[in-house]
Amino acid sequence: MEKKVVNAVQDIYPDDFAWCYGCGRLNEDGHHFRTGWQGEQTMTVYTPEKEHKAIPGFVYGGLIASLIDCHGTGSASLALHRKNGHEVGDGAEPPRFVTASLKVDFVKPTPDGVPLTAIGTVTEIHPKKWKVDVEVFANDAVCARGEVVAVVMPSSFKKQD
Amino acid sequence: MEKKVVNAVQDIYPDDFAWCYGCGRLNEDGHHFRTGWQGEQTMTVYTPEKEHKAIPGFVYGGLIASLIDCHGTGSASLALHRKNGHEVGDGAEPPRFVTASLKVDFVKPTPDGVPLTAIGTVTEIHPKKWKVDVEVFANDAVCARGEVVAVVMPSSFKKQD
Repeated sequence: MEKKVVNAVQDIYPDDFAWCYGCGRLNEDGHHFRTGWQGEQTMTVYTPEKEHKAIPGFVYGGLIASLIDCHGTGSASLALHRKNGHEVGDGAEPPRFVTASLKVDFVKPTPDGVPLTAIGTVTEIHPKKWKVDVEVFANDAVCARGEVVAVVMPSSFKKQD
Repeated sequence: MEKKVVNAVQDIYPDDFAWCYGCGRLNEDGHHFRTGWQGEQTMTVYTPEKEHKAIPGFVYGGLIASLIDCHGTGSASLALHRKNGHEVGDGAEPPRFVTASLKVDFVKPTPDGVPLTAIGTVTEIHPKKWKVDVEVFANDAVCARGEVVAVVMPSSFKKQD
């Protein structure tokens, strides 16, 4: 049975911050990555489009990096939201994170045409800075490992009125 | 005056390996990143599309990671091609690299609507393994720094006939 994320943090990002090409629900042209809890870990499931190839048969590394990136910021948001006493769906607005750094090790070629599952393990470094270790699976095999350091969105990203 | 890459290594990748979503000239839906020499360094210039945003006004980190990724493999290809006595345009087929690992530090929010310029410095680690240090500029300010370890495409990526 295909894994599915039901309650995704990106579903409840404030409208002003829901335009991300990777995970913004309001970006019509984007990937619409969606990240939720899976036990004590986090999960994003995404099936690449046919154009997201490196060479025929294999997924583009930049797409995998993008998946890990948004999975990281989404996971950090879920974790801080929970630390603050909230869960997706309780009506509270989650914190919005941005990526400070991203690392990806491409373990093996990633086959196309199947769902990719990113699983995250979240660690607090500082109240506003979280680390997310990520594994990306295709057909139950790890194809990439990543690490995202995510920080609460600084004011330099906020709209200049 | 806008910087422009004239002789790009992606222009001469063999057709079978020119489908990359990031830099493949044959992928109609892709970004078409193009990488060439700029003195002893390498350069890719790309203006993100309007949908490639993180939040309104700023470029999506996954797009920047993708730019660094393909700039890295393209730069490694240029460097090994030169080491082998060839330049883009002399009729020889360049080596094709894949990414072993990718690191990106997002130094500051990257403004949208302007060309991004990736500049690479290439170091040989091993005849089949090269490191590319990358800086991404917008409006002459460094917005991201990256490191790509690229390896000559292994046989596991080759078409299974």
